[in-house]
Amino acid sequence: MQKKALLRKKLAKARVDAILITDLINVRYLTGFTGSSGYSIITERDALFITDFRYKEQARGEVKGFKIIIENAERTGEIKKYCESYRIRTLGFEDHNVNYGLYRKLVKRKIRLKQLTNVIEQIRITKTEQELYDIRTAVKRAESAFRKLQPFIMAGTTEKKLALKLEGLLKSEGCKTLPFEVIVASGPTAALPHAQPTERKLRGGDLVVIDWGGECKGYTSDMTRTVLLKGRSISKQKELYYNVLEAQKRAIFKVQPGVNAADIDRAARTYIKQTGYDEYFGHGTGHGVGLAVHEKPVVSWRSREVIKENMVFTVEPGIYLPGFGGVRIEDMVAAKKGGADVMTSLPKKLKIIER
Amino acid sequence: MQKKALLRKKLAKARVDAILITDLINVRYLTGFTGSSGYSIITERDALFITDFRYKEQARGEVKGFKIIIENAERTGEIKKYCESYRIRTLGFEDHNVNYGLYRKLVKRKIRLKQLTNVIEQIRITKTEQELYDIRTAVKRAESAFRKLQPFIMAGTTEKKLALKLEGLLKSEGCKTLPFEVIVASGPTAALPHAQPTERKLRGGDLVVIDWGGECKGYTSDMTRTVLLKGRSISKQKELYYNVLEAQKRAIFKVQPGVNAADIDRAARTYIKQTGYDEYFGHGTGHGVGLAVHEKPVVSWRSREVIKENMVFTVEPGIYLPGFGGVRIEDMVAAKKGGADVMTSLPKKLKIIER
Repeated sequence: MQKKALLRKKLAKARVDAILITDLINVRYLTGFTGSSGYSIITERDALFITDFRYKEQARGEVKGFKIIIENAERTGEIKKYCESYRIRTLGFEDHNVNYGLYRKLVKRKIRLKQLTNVIEQIRITKTEQELYDIRTAVKRAESAFRKLQPFIMAGTTEKKLALKLEGLLKSEGCKTLPFEVIVASGPTAALPHAQPTERKLRGGDLVVIDWGGECKGYTSDMTRTVLLKGRSISKQKELYYNVLEAQKRAIFKVQPGVNAADIDRAARTYIKQTGYDEYFGHGTGHGVGLAVHEKPVVSWRSREVIKENMVFTVEPGIYLPGFGGVRIEDMVAAKKGGADVMTSLPKKLKIIER
Repeated sequence: MQKKALLRKKLAKARVDAILITDLINVRYLTGFTGSSGYSIITERDALFITDFRYKEQARGEVKGFKIIIENAERTGEIKKYCESYRIRTLGFEDHNVNYGLYRKLVKRKIRLKQLTNVIEQIRITKTEQELYDIRTAVKRAESAFRKLQPFIMAGTTEKKLALKLEGLLKSEGCKTLPFEVIVASGPTAALPHAQPTERKLRGGDLVVIDWGGECKGYTSDMTRTVLLKGRSISKQKELYYNVLEAQKRAIFKVQPGVNAADIDRAARTYIKQTGYDEYFGHGTGHGVGLAVHEKPVVSWRSREVIKENMVFTVEPGIYLPGFGGVRIEDMVAAKKGGADVMTSLPKKLKIIER
């Protein structure tokens, strides 16, 4: 299996005999297990998956290529036992996931540990064809749900009603879980980039930011569209929208294997600066998307990452004017030799709703 | 504010000048912040809440009694700065939440750290009157949603359809988020205690386990009911059901401040052993419920906790027969001087559905 082989190469390089995988998303990535309690130990020769009684049947159905162990004892004692029986002298662990409390308990068990940083994340960061396919399906489900939502976007409805409707549509499209709660933010609420839907009723002149995601086999999608409700004075709303859209297009145009992630961010940010709104664009331009809806690479001014082929990430600049409203436009792209393969397909021309 | 005062007492006892609070549920518990990025530092005199640009407006609305700081720099550098400006010599941290990677970075910044275990969780474990009220509201929302679901439980419908319907009903009742994805497990699927809903159609003779939760102001509820679809031979299903119900009643009867949590588990387990099904009851009898749907206390044979007044937890024994089906009955109780205050109120007499 390719993933395990790649990981074993990295383990050899890091000079550990095995890795303890506790991050559930990494566990799913490698084993296929979708439950909420289980971990894995991978050595040069062996691959163990350990879970408890509750997930026995599920693990048998989902986990292939691993020895499945059902345990009910205290975890650090079990890990010590596996280190002994599989002759693991140095056990690597995921330093973002093993908390300090667990670390100390393992040390007390006299397990020789080595801190590993993002070993599996570095494999996950570029997607296989199968992963791209699942992500595309997650995008399709999200877009299909949004199309069905459109007739319901109108003056008088509430943010909450729209968000709830969209969540139901996403599930009906086949999404087993939603990567995050749908955001619907209208008028002044839209000035909060991560607003929760409120009971506020949509009204004429509102910019309405809708940020939602789909799912397929655990793979996620993430996108945002901003629409405008017809009103008497909407010229400023239009100005904001087209500023963001141009910034977003410039960022997407930069996408290419070999480019610095920070340069993609800069393309959007420089344009927004030219429009005079740079102080109202406080977040990064994008983030990787895969089994986690926020994963590597980071696409911001602080990022040191270099884009590689088959990385998948969002491009989502925004402008947020306190008290007035906000605009964000978010697409997902896969980096390909020719440039960005834009995975999202919903139109980006400003939609002015007359209802 | 009482919570902060209780915490400061514990900090003094632990001989730290301040605590770094990174667990988002603990951050919410203390500050009221409901966003997904932010942390807090509480010293003897000061209380800081730090978040980034995206949550500026939201923090201003939600966080009271804290100095709100908007930062965009690297987090460990910021923490070092606060240690200097607030004269923090020893900074306590939450050892279940600070991962080893962050710990090492803080050490490199020459911050003197001290590992703290469950300091805030020990305050959260007993509920205030306000918290009990919010939890009761979460229970009411969950029960009201379930009552509206009942007419839809019938042969021919799928697990997924029922789960989706119940999730929609929960949101309509006012739950902003769901504490977990609704479980609907029928027939053989019900032998998996944590099954995900499938496309399986309900049919006569099925035991159907439905496990769902509500929410109110971040506080959660968690309950399970098992119903039976009329069929030709249902005597074994009935036997399993009434075995679990009697075990559950015996466990609830044990609830009292001062009792060991393990004794509550034993009451259920001993009865199930008498019925001969003990090997099919592999999980603990219950868990605390509050801002997190799984929190302290643990109610299992391994628990060393002693029940105190106003602890809130589930009582949920079950029997799971591979290939045949399962039964789980779950109530939520608050421990009160007179015994268990059962917060859930849906009837527990076996409901046989004739549709």
